[in-house]
Amino acid sequence: MKIELQNVLPDEIEKRSFELISMELKEKGIVLPKENELVIKRAIHTSADFDYTENLVFSEHAVQKAMEAIRNGACIVTDTQMAKAGINKKILAKYGGEVLCFMSDEDVAIQAKKHGTTRATASIDKAITYQKPLIFAIGNAPTALVRLYELISEQKIKPQLIIGVPVGFVNVVESKELILQTDIPYIVARGRKGGSNIAAAICNAILYQMGDRDF
Amino acid sequence: MKIELQNVLPDEIEKRSFELISMELKEKGIVLPKENELVIKRAIHTSADFDYTENLVFSEHAVQKAMEAIRNGACIVTDTQMAKAGINKKILAKYGGEVLCFMSDEDVAIQAKKHGTTRATASIDKAITYQKPLIFAIGNAPTALVRLYELISEQKIKPQLIIGVPVGFVNVVESKELILQTDIPYIVARGRKGGSNIAAAICNAILYQMGDRDF
Repeated sequence: MKIELQNVLPDEIEKRSFELISMELKEKGIVLPKENELVIKRAIHTSADFDYTENLVFSEHAVQKAMEAIRNGACIVTDTQMAKAGINKKILAKYGGEVLCFMSDEDVAIQAKKHGTTRATASIDKAITYQKPLIFAIGNAPTALVRLYELISEQKIKPQLIIGVPVGFVNVVESKELILQTDIPYIVARGRKGGSNIAAAICNAILYQMGDRDF
Repeated sequence: MKIELQNVLPDEIEKRSFELISMELKEKGIVLPKENELVIKRAIHTSADFDYTENLVFSEHAVQKAMEAIRNGACIVTDTQMAKAGINKKILAKYGGEVLCFMSDEDVAIQAKKHGTTRATASIDKAITYQKPLIFAIGNAPTALVRLYELISEQKIKPQLIIGVPVGFVNVVESKELILQTDIPYIVARGRKGGSNIAAAICNAILYQMGDRDF
């Protein structure tokens, strides 16, 4: 079988991908809300999974609020090194923010063992000691979302935004629903789907809008 | 709405997830080939996407060949820092291997610019200068697979295994089909789906089988 490759310049590949996603959405008759459009498209771009048109839910003006928080120097806390690796740190640094992940920290491992929790839970407890505005990008551990919910209920933390997109089978669906019950701005992938790649993609979609890209 | 969380011990979450995946496969009447089972289940675990039961294809005894290569000190080359971050480097190091990613290297950027290629292409060209047995875990860039195909055809490289799971819309489907035409052992996600998370998950499924886990 002869395989024909499309001739697309290196710098054009991502743009062309977004054009193909836009065309396919049009064919499916899907019109995305303007302010959430680039986030949803980038989630599709990173997964080739059009389910994200349906399962991503946004609190009111979540994307704008996230951009405002970043302009004010917010840091992004992730629950995996993978998500941290995937986020564009250059644009974030321009505004004084950085990406934090405490999952491999020794003190987090010790606290988790001591309290019989996951390291993700302990890493949220570590995050609240930070004095900066925080955006949480949770792509893996539902226990991180559960702990955030508890700390929000106890008024011990008030994140700028929660990106709640853990993937999986145990308490994943439920932990996301908990976040929807808070008054904190959120972007949540309802259901089982999500992942560190989706968490990073959502962060990047927000950051790129603050840079010079229109996709 | 009252949300009920399942009470699962931190150490048991992943195991429980795999049990739920197994149950759901059984309900769907899907029986996986024994030697590929843990790879397919881990791809589902990392994506909550059961499409991977259908789109993952394996050359003959690919998983066994990968384990043998790792036992002989093979290194894993990734095309993203995300995939590198997600791979369990501890088990690999036990056998003398490491995870390599050249994507952020300055010389790779220079070569890519000079030749008008993607950095992924240039990073494959850099990889062939390595004198160790190599496993390629490509979760992002179809151009990396295309370059591997060219170098294999020119007999300039003979990887131990190619994990070909880039995700996306431009030349993704085609680049994977190219790899299927080689005589190199492969694990490929046919179609558009895949990603750095899937690439890392497949590597980990292989590595965990060499450790003390049975899931």
